[in-house]
Amino acid sequence: MRERDVLKLLSERLPIGDDCAVIPFHKRNLLLTTDMLHRRTDFPEGMKPYAMGWRAVAASLSDIAAMGGEPLGVVMALGAPEFEKSFIEELLAGALAVCNLCKTQLLGGDTDRHDELTIVTTALGWAERPVGRRGAQPNDLVCVTGDLGRSAAALKLLAEGESEQAHELFCFVPRLAEGQALSAFVSSMMDISDGLARSLYQLGEASDVGFRIDATAIPFALEIEELARDQDELLEMGLHFGEDFELLFTLPQKHLVEARRCCEFTVIGQVVPKEKEITMQLGGEWIALEDRGYEH
Amino acid sequence: MRERDVLKLLSERLPIGDDCAVIPFHKRNLLLTTDMLHRRTDFPEGMKPYAMGWRAVAASLSDIAAMGGEPLGVVMALGAPEFEKSFIEELLAGALAVCNLCKTQLLGGDTDRHDELTIVTTALGWAERPVGRRGAQPNDLVCVTGDLGRSAAALKLLAEGESEQAHELFCFVPRLAEGQALSAFVSSMMDISDGLARSLYQLGEASDVGFRIDATAIPFALEIEELARDQDELLEMGLHFGEDFELLFTLPQKHLVEARRCCEFTVIGQVVPKEKEITMQLGGEWIALEDRGYEH
Repeated sequence: MRERDVLKLLSERLPIGDDCAVIPFHKRNLLLTTDMLHRRTDFPEGMKPYAMGWRAVAASLSDIAAMGGEPLGVVMALGAPEFEKSFIEELLAGALAVCNLCKTQLLGGDTDRHDELTIVTTALGWAERPVGRRGAQPNDLVCVTGDLGRSAAALKLLAEGESEQAHELFCFVPRLAEGQALSAFVSSMMDISDGLARSLYQLGEASDVGFRIDATAIPFALEIEELARDQDELLEMGLHFGEDFELLFTLPQKHLVEARRCCEFTVIGQVVPKEKEITMQLGGEWIALEDRGYEH
Repeated sequence: MRERDVLKLLSERLPIGDDCAVIPFHKRNLLLTTDMLHRRTDFPEGMKPYAMGWRAVAASLSDIAAMGGEPLGVVMALGAPEFEKSFIEELLAGALAVCNLCKTQLLGGDTDRHDELTIVTTALGWAERPVGRRGAQPNDLVCVTGDLGRSAAALKLLAEGESEQAHELFCFVPRLAEGQALSAFVSSMMDISDGLARSLYQLGEASDVGFRIDATAIPFALEIEELARDQDELLEMGLHFGEDFELLFTLPQKHLVEARRCCEFTVIGQVVPKEKEITMQLGGEWIALEDRGYEH
């Protein structure tokens, strides 16, 4: 089975479908999310241990953000082929730095000797009203925070030896403040960890809607506009590569002004009734957006 | 560095030291714990996928039990070399069965393609008064639930082709009911995942006390009494092999009668002021218990 099919099988057995599990607890909602990252697909050669620790924690905090939640703490399981002191210390420094930035704590974890470097982080959070993926309605606006393609750019820069610039891009800021502020207004939300294209298909499936996207409105990162050889590569890096961890959300039009006041984002399209494919306007033409993204 | 040294390094940076992290939340205490299990050290050849799923979840629930907590939910990250449908389904059935037994839910997770089968489970729980490892006092009684050596016996039975009997032993019951009932009386508690010997040293270090243990009182599992070739092997299987997931706790003598009413356990010794080594009475002699156990 492909990872996608495994997830489908799991979704038949488990109450999954959003970025976090929601656990009612004494009239509040706890949020719990776990992410597995490992050497081959998540930690390319040359990535600093600091960035590994940062990204592992930040990926889980991004899931809390995607539900409009506030983090309560993070635990980490670390499997490594050898426990070299400087490596562990740098990795831990990156993990602690992003916790500090997000006003939360790394609370503990587990270690294990493992042939392939593997980091599993679990974040706990809470939200008064958790935002899921199921509420998008036709005519809502489709929006994203930040700009897209930063991780794709970082990987390319790393390959070109520009490791400092890559490092900056790898250490992304989880959109917790934005997620919490937006949670009062949005009809659905998720993070773009699998790339915009795949994420749109996931959101559309959960909400049973379609989308019309305006390619010229998509906020591509300056770095990929510089690095991409041509438009095809730009779209690949910005729409399909993934690992961007920006928020994708749908917003009833009546809330646009209020939402604008609470954080920066870009409107990239509109929700429409369910269609067979998600379409994107590019150079005057409507093309089908491929349902293809990052499979970890 | 050895795993033990890594944990020491982490403990200097993180607020760790108990079986779970404790997170105060609206006048209550949330408990969070994560465990990494993988093929080489945790899933021997011949172990059924059902037992793998069961044990991965049960190990984390055992940590909740060790703090006297009640589980709120579990998430699981699964890395596997290939996602064969029957394998995933059996593994999931084991995970769901132990959740069901413990009146909690498997809430979701993450999957990843991974050369070595790796399961990381995280359990969330809560407790009115979480029990840690720091409260043992001289003259308290040292006690354990259940019997010791069941996982060691299971491994040996598996090697001898007795896979059904091994399977029964592998699917252990997390001591949640016992942990919750005992939490009102005990002065310190932890689970024996690293073996009784190592766990006693950990408890002694956390509480700054020593222990005198009576070997004849230790409740060794019938299976290891049958399987062990001699006394040395019996002690190895019962004291050092680990993966037993029983509760080790210290109990002020005045609470013995009340504690006896709420669950079954065995008194195996007494807390004494800190000594260089933990000693054990065996055949009329006091011997030093080796600080050696399961390193995962």
